[in-house]
Amino acid sequence: MEIPGLPPTAATDLETALRKLIAERELPLYRMMAFHMGWVDENGAPLHRPAPDRPHGMLALAASHAAGGDHRPALGCAVAVETVHNFWQIHADVEDGNTERAGRPSVWWTWGPAQAINAGDGMHAMARLAIFGLRRDGVPPERVAAALGALDEATVRLCEGEYLDITYQERLSLPVDDYLKMAEARSGALLGCAARLGGMAGAGGSEDRASELWEFGLKLGAARQVAGDIAAFWGEGDRDQVQQGRLIAKKKSLPVVHAMSHADATTRRRLGDLYVQRVLDPAAIKTVAAMMEACGSRRFAEDNLARLLAEADAALVAAGLSSSGTE
Amino acid sequence: MEIPGLPPTAATDLETALRKLIAERELPLYRMMAFHMGWVDENGAPLHRPAPDRPHGMLALAASHAAGGDHRPALGCAVAVETVHNFWQIHADVEDGNTERAGRPSVWWTWGPAQAINAGDGMHAMARLAIFGLRRDGVPPERVAAALGALDEATVRLCEGEYLDITYQERLSLPVDDYLKMAEARSGALLGCAARLGGMAGAGGSEDRASELWEFGLKLGAARQVAGDIAAFWGEGDRDQVQQGRLIAKKKSLPVVHAMSHADATTRRRLGDLYVQRVLDPAAIKTVAAMMEACGSRRFAEDNLARLLAEADAALVAAGLSSSGTE
Repeated sequence: MEIPGLPPTAATDLETALRKLIAERELPLYRMMAFHMGWVDENGAPLHRPAPDRPHGMLALAASHAAGGDHRPALGCAVAVETVHNFWQIHADVEDGNTERAGRPSVWWTWGPAQAINAGDGMHAMARLAIFGLRRDGVPPERVAAALGALDEATVRLCEGEYLDITYQERLSLPVDDYLKMAEARSGALLGCAARLGGMAGAGGSEDRASELWEFGLKLGAARQVAGDIAAFWGEGDRDQVQQGRLIAKKKSLPVVHAMSHADATTRRRLGDLYVQRVLDPAAIKTVAAMMEACGSRRFAEDNLARLLAEADAALVAAGLSSSGTE
Repeated sequence: MEIPGLPPTAATDLETALRKLIAERELPLYRMMAFHMGWVDENGAPLHRPAPDRPHGMLALAASHAAGGDHRPALGCAVAVETVHNFWQIHADVEDGNTERAGRPSVWWTWGPAQAINAGDGMHAMARLAIFGLRRDGVPPERVAAALGALDEATVRLCEGEYLDITYQERLSLPVDDYLKMAEARSGALLGCAARLGGMAGAGGSEDRASELWEFGLKLGAARQVAGDIAAFWGEGDRDQVQQGRLIAKKKSLPVVHAMSHADATTRRRLGDLYVQRVLDPAAIKTVAAMMEACGSRRFAEDNLARLLAEADAALVAAGLSSSGTE
């Protein structure tokens, strides 16, 4: 995600603050977290490579910058939201059996599921410590408490979305609206929280734009999930292991949801035969993609992606923040 | 744990407040939590049986009562700490492969590991919401923020202890002090937090006794873990599934730690042969217990249990709270 308008130091500031929270701790428990964050290899040796994208943290900084001209007031919240996102990734890799994440072995694949679940729990508990640090910077305690509450509410919402995503695996048909609600919660709640907390931090604590920024994040997150669905079937280059895993595990994807209810009877029956298996045969993915393209499901997903992005943009306009500054 | 001095309504107050946090939510995600808490069966039908012991919540209430004569100011913190303890149990059951907990199927055994990991995460995020509720009761925001920070620090410490507990599984010998530090973190950090937050709430926010109450909880928790170790080998009645699982998975227990370094060479070799297996043969547990009894390891563990309880008591005296009121 390109974030024009932010000074070039913003990404480095975020990375430095994230490292300060996690990398300064001694126990090897924290090495697993640092490994997941992309800073060290499994032996703790530093990796000299650019940090991965941090969309949640960067969105918080961008919202702060757009709302008040400075990204730095949002650093604590940016670190907290990004840390929650990463703890969740560690757990999602156990849940989905992903052996790789972003081209590297996942934490559970390297240290086993027990250590991965526990390292994720530790990171979850640590996420808020960055927000507590704001008290030292003179942020009033009621604003600190409000930020903490917003983070927990968003995390609960994320878990609700994840619950639905797992539950929907075993369903053949699903209303499109149910899919979209799941995608907003699972992929949008933390982005909404990032935008909201960033906007508040940048505007000196004002909650004026909170609901618009929350809405912006929800729609942007749902759009990201739909874009991922489309890329998993029709993207250029190789599918990554997480995308491939979602397809095989029959995690619901918008084009499939559409095809299951809108394709002609023959196509629906053929899709049903494939999706009734315990896992989707990887060799069948091409067949499924072609069937969905033929019955308009790719187009349907692309139209929804465009609509969600337009809704995100409208929320940003309603917040009085130029979309070019935060997207 | 008997808590004399507390009014008989305290346990009911705690249970009501816990239900208010968890049972009022609609999504089936929360049914899994309610199932774990002992309120409903797997279909969501109410279970009419007494609630399980809630040592963490009750300790917070007892500390509040001892410090200020009323347990009710600590209800929010009691709910939060008890909820963290229960989220951790849900995850520990996945980590250790426990199919049962307290005579009922575990969450992961009922809904699968992915849903159990996610339900635990949701409960972790919800734990703090009970503390935020204190703002509505007029508790100043700086005290709310302090309580939240203490809870997260304790949860991080718990995860450090759990990390060590998993790591020690594969070690044959371990210094006794390392075992005790692990037991304090894993089994004492949340109790220490409960005592500390309860004492603060009861005394209107005063942190005067915070470090003594924290120490009390650490020692009490380590004592509970050692008592569990002793009961797993020599307890009356059947071992429960969690105890049995720990033994088979070679989770370190104080008598074993002692025997590995203090038994004579022949006993150490025989123990080593048993513990070098991938899992401990359940049939070997009786043999191991007899060997450890013969070389004084049972006695050693019992002496340590008595010492830890005396240290807990001393911390309570140092806090100026009568031990009869909180233990």
